[in-house]
Amino acid sequence: MTDAPEDGFPAEDSLQVDDGFHVFDTTLRDGAQREGISLTVADKLTIARHLDDFGVGFIEGGWPGANPRDTEFFQRAAAEIDFRHAQLVAFGATRKAGVRAEDDPQVAALVDSGAPVVTLVAKSHDRHVELALRTTLDENLAMVRDTVSYLRERGRRVFVDCEHFFDGYHANPGYATQVVRTAHEAGADVVVLCDTNGGMLPAQVRTVVEAVLAETGARLGIHAQDDTGCAVANTLAAVDAGATHVQCTANGYGERVGNSNLFPVVAALEIKYDRRVLPPGKLAEMTRISHAIAEVVNLTPSTHQPYVGVSAFAHKAGLHASAIKVDPDLYQHIDPERVGNTMRMLVSDMAGRASIELKGKELGIDLGDDRALVARVVERVKERELAGYTYEAADASFELLLRAEVEGRSRRYYRVESWRAIVEDRPDGTHANEATVKLWAKGERIVATAEGNGPVNALDRALRVALERIYPQLAALKLTDYKVRILEGSLGTGSITRVLVSTSDERGEWSTVGVAENVIAASWQALDDAYAYGLRRAGVEPQE
Amino acid sequence: MTDAPEDGFPAEDSLQVDDGFHVFDTTLRDGAQREGISLTVADKLTIARHLDDFGVGFIEGGWPGANPRDTEFFQRAAAEIDFRHAQLVAFGATRKAGVRAEDDPQVAALVDSGAPVVTLVAKSHDRHVELALRTTLDENLAMVRDTVSYLRERGRRVFVDCEHFFDGYHANPGYATQVVRTAHEAGADVVVLCDTNGGMLPAQVRTVVEAVLAETGARLGIHAQDDTGCAVANTLAAVDAGATHVQCTANGYGERVGNSNLFPVVAALEIKYDRRVLPPGKLAEMTRISHAIAEVVNLTPSTHQPYVGVSAFAHKAGLHASAIKVDPDLYQHIDPERVGNTMRMLVSDMAGRASIELKGKELGIDLGDDRALVARVVERVKERELAGYTYEAADASFELLLRAEVEGRSRRYYRVESWRAIVEDRPDGTHANEATVKLWAKGERIVATAEGNGPVNALDRALRVALERIYPQLAALKLTDYKVRILEGSLGTGSITRVLVSTSDERGEWSTVGVAENVIAASWQALDDAYAYGLRRAGVEPQE
Repeated sequence: MTDAPEDGFPAEDSLQVDDGFHVFDTTLRDGAQREGISLTVADKLTIARHLDDFGVGFIEGGWPGANPRDTEFFQRAAAEIDFRHAQLVAFGATRKAGVRAEDDPQVAALVDSGAPVVTLVAKSHDRHVELALRTTLDENLAMVRDTVSYLRERGRRVFVDCEHFFDGYHANPGYATQVVRTAHEAGADVVVLCDTNGGMLPAQVRTVVEAVLAETGARLGIHAQDDTGCAVANTLAAVDAGATHVQCTANGYGERVGNSNLFPVVAALEIKYDRRVLPPGKLAEMTRISHAIAEVVNLTPSTHQPYVGVSAFAHKAGLHASAIKVDPDLYQHIDPERVGNTMRMLVSDMAGRASIELKGKELGIDLGDDRALVARVVERVKERELAGYTYEAADASFELLLRAEVEGRSRRYYRVESWRAIVEDRPDGTHANEATVKLWAKGERIVATAEGNGPVNALDRALRVALERIYPQLAALKLTDYKVRILEGSLGTGSITRVLVSTSDERGEWSTVGVAENVIAASWQALDDAYAYGLRRAGVEPQE
Repeated sequence: MTDAPEDGFPAEDSLQVDDGFHVFDTTLRDGAQREGISLTVADKLTIARHLDDFGVGFIEGGWPGANPRDTEFFQRAAAEIDFRHAQLVAFGATRKAGVRAEDDPQVAALVDSGAPVVTLVAKSHDRHVELALRTTLDENLAMVRDTVSYLRERGRRVFVDCEHFFDGYHANPGYATQVVRTAHEAGADVVVLCDTNGGMLPAQVRTVVEAVLAETGARLGIHAQDDTGCAVANTLAAVDAGATHVQCTANGYGERVGNSNLFPVVAALEIKYDRRVLPPGKLAEMTRISHAIAEVVNLTPSTHQPYVGVSAFAHKAGLHASAIKVDPDLYQHIDPERVGNTMRMLVSDMAGRASIELKGKELGIDLGDDRALVARVVERVKERELAGYTYEAADASFELLLRAEVEGRSRRYYRVESWRAIVEDRPDGTHANEATVKLWAKGERIVATAEGNGPVNALDRALRVALERIYPQLAALKLTDYKVRILEGSLGTGSITRVLVSTSDERGEWSTVGVAENVIAASWQALDDAYAYGLRRAGVEPQE
């Protein structure tokens, strides 16, 4: 890296990040071990694109040969993805005991994957060598040496993951260190110390990494699991001690509690250490990329994830809200824009006047002068939240509530007389879902019936059938998400149900809430608000 | 503490924990700032009982005088709770600028609360004193001194929370240290350094705590927020540096990302530091208490929370599963029983034969010899998970599937011909929910109709009405939880719905799953499995 400018980055036209520090992602391999995650090849390709876009240096794609899905992933990734920043990494194990590396089909599959980099997992805990691998300590060293040499001869860059390293070091420091030295001398570029069972604390990690670095001189990496809740801190402690390669997963996905979370690790390095580990401008895409990956793995993004959660910069306390009006920096450790997130003022029954006023301003409604109005809104929010509503996650429903108070009445586009939904399971195993709505719109009584793939879908369709002639703007509205939450969860199906609906038009998305003793009635309320908000956005004048 | 035995604990008959180290919980005050939490007085009393049961030394109950709910909490807690381990703490601020402590109604409310301990929040960041408090640096010191002295004179034990301490120390170390010294000299028992904005990393915390301790000699505490994902590590770093008072919240609840999580902090101190900070035997109740508090605040317990999450000791990888058969300790950092959790083998499409065999063993079904059977089960699980089922969270449905394969057919208690659910919103705003089931049981055709507070509840009741005469054992089954998840969340109400139902009898609880294109049909499947499993548990012989 001869003509890197002062900031450690290569010139603008090459976006490859400096090799001096590795951000290594293993979402597709170790992250996929998380309970609830099951990735298709298409999912893996999409995630790889997001990670490359984010600018990680290495993407561990899986274990070629271990299952057909991973083998296919490497073939398709090489053919279909034009990586801009990342190199693809194949994961595998050292050769079997008593077999030559060139004769081990699992090792051959690593070469065949075509990945330029290979991570080899090696045992470094003496007890694991004997009990899980069932071989001798010497043969294990030979397995490491032979497999690294073999792959190096075939032109692969090799990283060695020392599994259970910290527990192994505790039990037998001499042997654990010997494994690191063997991998290093055989030509491994990085030897990664893994806290596989995740039981370490930062001070321990730091001490061990320092000792191993001093003793072996090998380039060291860290792979931390989050079983003590310290994976991010353990990763940073290893960096403090001299590690220059961090293995993480997007959103901390991984087995048991999870892995070290890529996003807070990278944010700490970039912002707190002032160390450039991503291509320029990429940190500001972190929130979007975190959420996009959560969508692909089909898990709700954690609302409370550091830096990227929707709550990460959300303020609720009345005390803080008034100070934030003075200076937002007083109550935020960083400007949320740096990681692509935004500050939010929450509307909740703990909110004082200041929060409601700020929220009104956010919506372009100036409440500043009318203290009685603000007090009424606060009162109304408290009353509704007591009944199970939540406005924190339903901005559009809150805006409708606020406007109803400002305008003195709820201005609607139609008046519902009644509706009915029927779900029928027929003897042949199929289902019929039918809904009927009866309503008044612009002085006209309309009755419409529709079928759907479920009762809510049938209601949605019946409502659209009823209104499409009078409000053609409804055709542009799409339901994009639908969430059901049972409140008072210990009461079984007799509980209160809260439904959150997200709806979009060509310009954006909004959320609405409904609460009722049953899921259909709650869904109806949320749909009703969604359409009222959508029509208002479209500039349609309310008229029942 | 003169006759404490070697382990640092007082004799068995006194369960009060040694004052030398404080576990201080602020779930009821700072934890309640979390987005989505809104506690009633009854909730707060219940949580206080759980925390006292767990054995924390201090429970910060709220800010008496700031709102009627907190004032009422202190009255009722004193009257209704017989605390075994904890002392109740009232939170408040130092006196207002330019007012005598005895004339400040907010300070009076602290005394009136009757709490034996008071935490006073004080500004220690010069910029906050000037911009948020709008007073002089000297007056702020006087406010700390006067308020601490006043409360000490009234016999209260006083802790002082230095808000924004770490940022303040960075900006003006002399002034921040002066605030600590002032509080200490005025008689505060503990001065708590707060990372209010949560931007710190462990190495920084350690350095600052060491420096302040050396400079002031005050007893120090730590209050960490999790904005960098390091709150637990920051808390432990402060302890490493000499702090002897840790402020945490149950499950890490708190504003923005949250607070330092009580459970991993206490577990680290007890297990990793081998330091007794809880009464004997209480650590083993941690998982139960964590989940119980989540129920009260009405948030789903985090499945991936360290130590106490249901996934915290769950193993899925085929590789690990085979090694776990050799020795579970190889793949766990602690024995989960120590914190009241259990190891789980997950059934999922990543599971190999070993996981299915272990799971069978867990259920008392030996599959060891029948390789073709295990292969069939693996195949069936893959196929169903592809369709949206999840057996990781639905043990009972998995057992039914497994038994159906072992017995060669699904043995059921009744055969459903058809069912129907109707939800009707009437012009007067009330809802009618009615369901009809038609089924065959023990050769008899039965038609039953029932109403409920929702369509699923109506179906549940109709099923019970139909079957109660033939299977009176159903009366003992209770639905205890009901969860709805929309899969392929980007498709709006046209998506696939997965329902998980928890059911209990007098001996325990089980979970079942249903998947369908609509919520009612999915609920029906889950109910159907729940009853089949419940009747089998009750020893009833299947007979359609």
